[in-house]
Amino acid sequence: MKLLQEAIEKRGIILNDNILKVDSFMNHQIDPQLMFEIGKEFADHYRNQEITKIVTIESSGIAPAVFTGLAMNLPVVFLKKSEPSTMIDPVYVESFSFTKNRKYTLCMESSMLEQGDKILFIDDFLANGQAFESFESLMGKCGATIAGIGIVIEKSFQKGRKTIEDKGYDIYSLARIQSMENGKINWID
Amino acid sequence: MKLLQEAIEKRGIILNDNILKVDSFMNHQIDPQLMFEIGKEFADHYRNQEITKIVTIESSGIAPAVFTGLAMNLPVVFLKKSEPSTMIDPVYVESFSFTKNRKYTLCMESSMLEQGDKILFIDDFLANGQAFESFESLMGKCGATIAGIGIVIEKSFQKGRKTIEDKGYDIYSLARIQSMENGKINWID
Repeated sequence: MKLLQEAIEKRGIILNDNILKVDSFMNHQIDPQLMFEIGKEFADHYRNQEITKIVTIESSGIAPAVFTGLAMNLPVVFLKKSEPSTMIDPVYVESFSFTKNRKYTLCMESSMLEQGDKILFIDDFLANGQAFESFESLMGKCGATIAGIGIVIEKSFQKGRKTIEDKGYDIYSLARIQSMENGKINWID
Repeated sequence: MKLLQEAIEKRGIILNDNILKVDSFMNHQIDPQLMFEIGKEFADHYRNQEITKIVTIESSGIAPAVFTGLAMNLPVVFLKKSEPSTMIDPVYVESFSFTKNRKYTLCMESSMLEQGDKILFIDDFLANGQAFESFESLMGKCGATIAGIGIVIEKSFQKGRKTIEDKGYDIYSLARIQSMENGKINWID
């Protein structure tokens, strides 16, 4: 997605060969017009997959997910990283954040999904695929089917992409980074 | 806002006289079409206030805030409840969540705001006003001006509204709850 690649090149910060910060338009400050276009792009790709619900993970997944939900006229569920006191009958899995270097519990109220739901997973980044695997495990507990995976920025040099492809899922990443060596991004088109 | 009041009556759950759960359309599952209308409503109210940026708090504030940002063509910053390892030069304040009954650190990268920014604060709920006061303190540290406060659901029987009004801020709440006794919501129109 050209518009997104331009935003990353212009407004992203490459901290080192592995870490890209996009706090200026997605992960801390959000550019709603760009997110609106991102939502339309995911919707175009997944329009004929009979998706019944979109699922993402708080907090940075919410913006791309809600604009996808707007474009597809579908509800969006965000998984929580801690269990609020008002949650009834939660389902949860343990996960690990490489960015924050700590374990966390990924959690959802069981009534949010039904047997037979066909889920489109939307997330801001794909790197090691740890968040995806936790999501996948949670969906398994609910009897929901994963119909697609929409990623805003994929670090293709880390193992997440391959893990997901090997499992046969339909994955669609809007910007695929081959490498970020010497402060320059090489794209996979 | 009629559409929102109807959603609360139809899809909200009154847990007791003080706690309203709206996990079916805002705080866990999100209804993007409703959030789109909410965004337009805030935009209509604050259109002539020369707002430069919208600020909210993760996670439940993000959906109403990004749709307000879309309608006003403004960037949205979400304050974080923990400090990510990649944050450069953070500003923070201590806050307290009554819902979760615990302290947390509200945190923002200092580059997100500039001296002279005129801020519209958007949040999902207003109860005791604790989140607002933490936000206010953080804005003070950045030299930003608070130009308006947009609340989706206000529990008017708690002290937040009065605290904010007494300080002279322009507050606009889309649904104002006078009481929730015996499982019935009384609205302030």
